[in-house]
Amino acid sequence: MTRSDMEQSGSELQGLREEVAETTKEIIKQVARRIELAKRIGQVKSRDSLPIDNERVEDALLEEVLQECKELGLDEQLGTKILATLLAESKRAQRAQGSAKAQPLITPMVMMAKATEIEKKGKKLIRLDVGEPDFHPPRAVLDAVSEALYSYKTYYTVGRGIPELLSALRDYLAKRYAYREAAENQLIVTPGGRFAVYSALATVASEGDSVVVIEPNWPAYKEGLDYIGARPIVVQTTLEERWQPSPEKVKAAVRPNTKAIVLSYPANPTGAIIDKAKFKETVGIADDLGLTVISDEIYNDYAYEPCPTILEGLPRKYILTSSFSKGWSMTGFRVGYSLAPAETSSRMLKVLGLMITCVPEFIQRGAAKALECEEEVSRNSRAMKERIDATSAELRKIDALELLKPEGAIYAFPQAKDPRFDSAAFAMELLEKKGVTVSPGTGFGDYPRCFRISLGQPQEVLTAGVRKIGELLG
Amino acid sequence: MTRSDMEQSGSELQGLREEVAETTKEIIKQVARRIELAKRIGQVKSRDSLPIDNERVEDALLEEVLQECKELGLDEQLGTKILATLLAESKRAQRAQGSAKAQPLITPMVMMAKATEIEKKGKKLIRLDVGEPDFHPPRAVLDAVSEALYSYKTYYTVGRGIPELLSALRDYLAKRYAYREAAENQLIVTPGGRFAVYSALATVASEGDSVVVIEPNWPAYKEGLDYIGARPIVVQTTLEERWQPSPEKVKAAVRPNTKAIVLSYPANPTGAIIDKAKFKETVGIADDLGLTVISDEIYNDYAYEPCPTILEGLPRKYILTSSFSKGWSMTGFRVGYSLAPAETSSRMLKVLGLMITCVPEFIQRGAAKALECEEEVSRNSRAMKERIDATSAELRKIDALELLKPEGAIYAFPQAKDPRFDSAAFAMELLEKKGVTVSPGTGFGDYPRCFRISLGQPQEVLTAGVRKIGELLG
Repeated sequence: MTRSDMEQSGSELQGLREEVAETTKEIIKQVARRIELAKRIGQVKSRDSLPIDNERVEDALLEEVLQECKELGLDEQLGTKILATLLAESKRAQRAQGSAKAQPLITPMVMMAKATEIEKKGKKLIRLDVGEPDFHPPRAVLDAVSEALYSYKTYYTVGRGIPELLSALRDYLAKRYAYREAAENQLIVTPGGRFAVYSALATVASEGDSVVVIEPNWPAYKEGLDYIGARPIVVQTTLEERWQPSPEKVKAAVRPNTKAIVLSYPANPTGAIIDKAKFKETVGIADDLGLTVISDEIYNDYAYEPCPTILEGLPRKYILTSSFSKGWSMTGFRVGYSLAPAETSSRMLKVLGLMITCVPEFIQRGAAKALECEEEVSRNSRAMKERIDATSAELRKIDALELLKPEGAIYAFPQAKDPRFDSAAFAMELLEKKGVTVSPGTGFGDYPRCFRISLGQPQEVLTAGVRKIGELLG
Repeated sequence: MTRSDMEQSGSELQGLREEVAETTKEIIKQVARRIELAKRIGQVKSRDSLPIDNERVEDALLEEVLQECKELGLDEQLGTKILATLLAESKRAQRAQGSAKAQPLITPMVMMAKATEIEKKGKKLIRLDVGEPDFHPPRAVLDAVSEALYSYKTYYTVGRGIPELLSALRDYLAKRYAYREAAENQLIVTPGGRFAVYSALATVASEGDSVVVIEPNWPAYKEGLDYIGARPIVVQTTLEERWQPSPEKVKAAVRPNTKAIVLSYPANPTGAIIDKAKFKETVGIADDLGLTVISDEIYNDYAYEPCPTILEGLPRKYILTSSFSKGWSMTGFRVGYSLAPAETSSRMLKVLGLMITCVPEFIQRGAAKALECEEEVSRNSRAMKERIDATSAELRKIDALELLKPEGAIYAFPQAKDPRFDSAAFAMELLEKKGVTVSPGTGFGDYPRCFRISLGQPQEVLTAGVRKIGELLG
């Protein structure tokens, strides 16, 4: 370039940059104006006691923004992200206008603190709140972990998982589900099913996106989406519907920014298993709409009715998450896995590599051994079935409650007949008066009439706990 | 409310909402205009071969946005976040205008694949690239883990860490650093130092923020910031400066959106230890500016000159991260910890709870035992000192290289005298011709003349490896 070329290029850039700065300032001005409007809306809502969240209004805005993006040739992901930023800020501004919304007084944290306080005083509680089986992990697993430890399998290993475990998982999927297509670059060994779920959500959804979640459900899906800045779109199910999601409702819930549908059966907390036809239809909807199905099959070994699996008819986009925590009663080993198309899997692996490097090799060796422990898994499964039967019978004796008998998983989720029932207050009273802990239904969605009983206790404890519940409700 | 009140409130809301929608569309229009300008800038830059990144321009924009926020009473965090979104999109648009920038041909991934390929053919390589000590973990740790396993410490535990380990860590910090203030609600047990670092970064910085990082350095800090959407502001150090960061440069690097400064000494990859006065001054700068100091003290047990610690004079905002990986040679246990003010710690804990629930209890029991294993740590430290001495002497024999003798950590980071040296190409050639792996300096910042040798091998292997390096360079 000659000197005069450079000068020309310099002044051209200079001019463009000034325009960029002006536009940026204009954007900020409009944002400020928008927040001002949000505050005024907040004042009206506060004055007239209207709720701050309004999905219909948000949906309409999303449509308008996407339409605008289309017309202007702007990346839609950028549009949805900016809208999400604006909406979050608007809500913050609106909340600041109203009287601070009353926080629920009885949170799981408050309950947990209360339980610990009581236990410290030496009183023995009946703990029906913790979501894990009480079975011992297989002895062979302990031996394998210990042997690996003493053989110094105590160094860094590849992030995806050791080849021995990946290959054992392939064999397991082939044997257990007749699924023979799993390639090693589709599998990842994760520190628990929870990390598999987080990395799945973080890989398919970004800030401003949305994901369909069926409730009642394990709160980790919503928590993960909140962390990412994505919106959970909740499809509610009811006991009256046998906790079955309606595919039509799922379809109707999908927004233009929806990226995935999360399914998890047998379900926590209801123990329900989705009908095969409904599962297939829902997966078909996802496929038609180009969405990812995240199927969390962590309770698959506790299924007493045929339970559909994503492996039976994979959609184009899928992530299977699972874990050794429940079937093998290995919660405290923190080891799970995911299966997804290679490209998705490689993006999930980046999250794992960034945050934890790898799962300890000696634990992975234990997990590989666990896959051979079919007998223990069957024994655990049979024991849980007996508990479901006995505990359901016990719960049925309580007039104030109704229950859909769990078809799987390790929980019962009774519902009070009284429509004004407040499960959080009930749980606290139960703890204080009867020394029994349960999980209020509000921890799993908008279910104040329900509470969760974990069946991870010997039957006599479960029976004693349920009888105390009956006493309080009787 | 009467019916007419409701109607009035409804139409008032309706009017405000229409204004919100209009403003939203106006914002999107301006964003599209801004992207259009970015594309034109991209065309000019591509035509005149100018770089896309321009920190000076970005800084000026940031100032203007913050000024605008101040004038309009808009939350500055919101302004920086929107600017970050716009800048990222602008760069994407600019890149799309230019010819795709040539990717480096020799990445760590390519090298690793090559090494695996060679090893599969049965050839034994000298691996000087893996950043972990080769020592055995303490026998007492193996025993403690195994005992905990067989005592069924295999269930969920509290996210923060078991009380036994938290209390052992308190005692350790009191003994090792004469730091007696650590409360249990300030400590968190993490799955490795890497997770402690990630959750520290994610807690202090959000999208649009920036964090000062000194280079050369472990790439995980930058990777974490990228994931969060925050910008790493790099302060470079040179061998000529004894890899010492200048506090003035650190101060000058701080932007209005800077939230933290990351310090990590003894340093990976240089083995340098920051001068005490410089450390103190840097911490003071952070304190004056209200920034968090993240001090990653993972190599503290491999320090052969006095190494400052954040515990000696805590700033108001601090996060100490550390790990059992290096001092105890427990990389594959994936257990580390963090110490921070209670409120910061509680926010970090949320990230851990969301993603991994807890670190396995049997591993935590091993970590608690490790804290008693002072002898093994001293032995590891002495062995590493001998390797540093012998390997440095060996490296000094190579005329083409210069070296600042490491004062700590477990690496040597020689620099080629030839200013045109290409360490990535050299590393590949060394692997192919001599069967030795090293890590190119470009993996730790802009250091193409340097490469990292990990001292996690017996001395005879290190000497053999360095001699082969000498042969290739000789």
